[in-house]
Amino acid sequence: MRLSRYFLPVLKENPSEAQIVSHRLMLRAGMIKQASAGIYSWLPLGFKVLRKIENIVHEEQARAGHMPMLMPTIQSAELWRESGRYDAYGAEMLRFKDRHDRDMLFTPTAEELITDIFRANVSSYKDLPLTMYQIQWKFRDEIRPRFGVMRGREFLMKDGYNFDLTKEDALHAYNRHLVTYLRTYERMGLQAIPMRADSGPIGGDDTHEFLVLAETGESEVFYDSAVTDLKFGDREIDYDSVEDCAAVMEEFTDKYARTDETHDAALFEQVPEDRRRVARGIEVGQIFYFGTKYSEPLGAVVQGPDGKQVPVHMGSHGIGVSRLLGAIIEANHDENGIIWPEGVTPFHVGIVNLRQGDEATDGACEALYKALKAKGFDPLYDDRDERAGGKFAAMDLIGLPWRITVGPRGLKNGVVELTSRRTGESVELTAEAAVDRIAEIYAGI
Amino acid sequence: MRLSRYFLPVLKENPSEAQIVSHRLMLRAGMIKQASAGIYSWLPLGFKVLRKIENIVHEEQARAGHMPMLMPTIQSAELWRESGRYDAYGAEMLRFKDRHDRDMLFTPTAEELITDIFRANVSSYKDLPLTMYQIQWKFRDEIRPRFGVMRGREFLMKDGYNFDLTKEDALHAYNRHLVTYLRTYERMGLQAIPMRADSGPIGGDDTHEFLVLAETGESEVFYDSAVTDLKFGDREIDYDSVEDCAAVMEEFTDKYARTDETHDAALFEQVPEDRRRVARGIEVGQIFYFGTKYSEPLGAVVQGPDGKQVPVHMGSHGIGVSRLLGAIIEANHDENGIIWPEGVTPFHVGIVNLRQGDEATDGACEALYKALKAKGFDPLYDDRDERAGGKFAAMDLIGLPWRITVGPRGLKNGVVELTSRRTGESVELTAEAAVDRIAEIYAGI
Repeated sequence: MRLSRYFLPVLKENPSEAQIVSHRLMLRAGMIKQASAGIYSWLPLGFKVLRKIENIVHEEQARAGHMPMLMPTIQSAELWRESGRYDAYGAEMLRFKDRHDRDMLFTPTAEELITDIFRANVSSYKDLPLTMYQIQWKFRDEIRPRFGVMRGREFLMKDGYNFDLTKEDALHAYNRHLVTYLRTYERMGLQAIPMRADSGPIGGDDTHEFLVLAETGESEVFYDSAVTDLKFGDREIDYDSVEDCAAVMEEFTDKYARTDETHDAALFEQVPEDRRRVARGIEVGQIFYFGTKYSEPLGAVVQGPDGKQVPVHMGSHGIGVSRLLGAIIEANHDENGIIWPEGVTPFHVGIVNLRQGDEATDGACEALYKALKAKGFDPLYDDRDERAGGKFAAMDLIGLPWRITVGPRGLKNGVVELTSRRTGESVELTAEAAVDRIAEIYAGI
Repeated sequence: MRLSRYFLPVLKENPSEAQIVSHRLMLRAGMIKQASAGIYSWLPLGFKVLRKIENIVHEEQARAGHMPMLMPTIQSAELWRESGRYDAYGAEMLRFKDRHDRDMLFTPTAEELITDIFRANVSSYKDLPLTMYQIQWKFRDEIRPRFGVMRGREFLMKDGYNFDLTKEDALHAYNRHLVTYLRTYERMGLQAIPMRADSGPIGGDDTHEFLVLAETGESEVFYDSAVTDLKFGDREIDYDSVEDCAAVMEEFTDKYARTDETHDAALFEQVPEDRRRVARGIEVGQIFYFGTKYSEPLGAVVQGPDGKQVPVHMGSHGIGVSRLLGAIIEANHDENGIIWPEGVTPFHVGIVNLRQGDEATDGACEALYKALKAKGFDPLYDDRDERAGGKFAAMDLIGLPWRITVGPRGLKNGVVELTSRRTGESVELTAEAAVDRIAEIYAGI
């Protein structure tokens, strides 16, 4: 993309309404614009990152055999009355009537609807196990929306649901989801720590939240520092293997790590003192096992191998897709702007032309731009007629992890400059070598 | 995907609520399930096709340099009062109050909001031209929703908006969109004829609707049969060239083709009698040029080259993404089910194992499945323990364009059978040759 043709309305001033750094940087980098309180439009740069995050979520769910589908944003209140949650859910659920005066709502979660789909179509244990998920917009009518996309009213969420014959099978699904989530977050450059949590309005006994450590996190968290040494990495795993998934669950949850909701001071005391940590965290996902909480009232039963009708065991699993942009920025920024991890960066590399209008420099930039595109990369070429300082500031603000600077002085020596946004370190090399270096960097991503 | 693990709840009976064939087949093929009146869940098979259609729309918009972004589904009523459309829009707009008693609505279209984004960020003609678009869920509270996804209440739409300095520039954007739409529909295997239409609540003088001919179409259409001979094909076009785009517009709209809203009997009489056609059509898209209808009331002005402030010229452009599934099926089916065009088929090819449990046949199917996946194809392997008749009926119903049948008798002679869903013709060939043939078929798609 050529910046001269891209819609990137960066702001020079800090917007006064933004209290936290991710909100401030997303506004300044022209990624979002508030439409009304807690409701945002995603401008081209923000939308690009949102799609990258969505794609990673899809890929990791597909790897585990989970099937994507999509449920509507607007639902009738009927099913929610059947499960008993219509009245239980508070004022955060957006309720209204349609033109025929029927009670409708903007769905905050979809346990009821997916259970209805299941009960209408599945009647035998032979069709189990089954896991389906969607990435869909949700609405939660927060009384005080704030922190930009971190606590907005309209937000994009991945919500998945598993249906299993027995509690053991459903716990395998629970463990399998933990594995998929660990991989998902790591691919986004995040460390998200599974912590024992409270189940809230979803219900059930077993639940873990995934928290990214950040000063601006909404939850106080207590953990054994050994959990931050764990890394899922690129290990191969058989998602159908009960043992493989249980081993990962054990490895990542056997040390103390809890949110304030479930914190147990006495247990925490047993962690060696030098490893006890109290910090703040941003919740980016949660997994639940809630057994037959929905299948019983909604009559989601199957015939078991013994011919008896039994309610299925279920769980649900969520990732806060739009809020992840905020979390990633909270964990990856400096005083000059965002620093995107390679896995989610909106453009792979920026090209800065130090002397726009100079024939040789323009030509070298064009050639570099085309060479990068020919190798399948998506570069952002700053071809505006601006001073170098302004171009560098914009690139730093929007946070592309790599920048190639092209100027007449370097070209005389046959080199361009490749700079890491994270370390600030630069190397001089030929344009061809710069393209090769970019290819190496992204080879494993 | 192995069918034994896929959620594909096909129905044997015709659902009584479905009046038209696409609705009936989408329900029977397990693509959708009604959640409430005019509101559908997209089951895995339906969601797959929806995503393919979305991707084609994205690719063709990107080719023309249009930028994807995303606006929220819920908007405040404020901007709609500013444009004057809040009261003008009828009961089809879903209106409600949030918990702070503010008037909100589920957006049926986004001219106001995109104009607000524009006016907040663009002030010079130097930032023009600009075209942005989104693919987002809309809601239209139809009094009598029917025909499944063809006339639902919650529907997925691509809506794009262009901002230009002059009427001439905006008309180029109009022509450019016509070109992108022609390519988009053809890639989906559809002939969509641009017809002069009425602008309705969007407003403006210049508007064309794109109609797919089908007996079940909601509009009566009148056209010169010569328009059905036109094909965009894979011609190369420079989207920045005013002449190139205008020539395509001329070629595709100079013959008589109108919907009943703009039909002119006297003009139609001038078409040679043997080429006059009266038929029915399904509307799958519409493009508008409406000048300064929104930019004036909302104050979307830029400084021109002469230093004067002028309101920008705008247009908007829509594709009915979810309704396209219905339109494609209306135009592509037979008495046994759907016949997907290769460009949008949910799976590239089906594999039918005629003797599940037979070691040699199972082995040959597995090898074929892996060979297809290794070449980047997405096969659906019917590995269920079912009779051949049931497997063929399911494959015909869900409409994969190609089927490979593997049985013990053929394997004895070293062959499998490749069958075209459209023609019913079969050829016997080796498994390797079948894979090569599939690769050839999809090479141009």
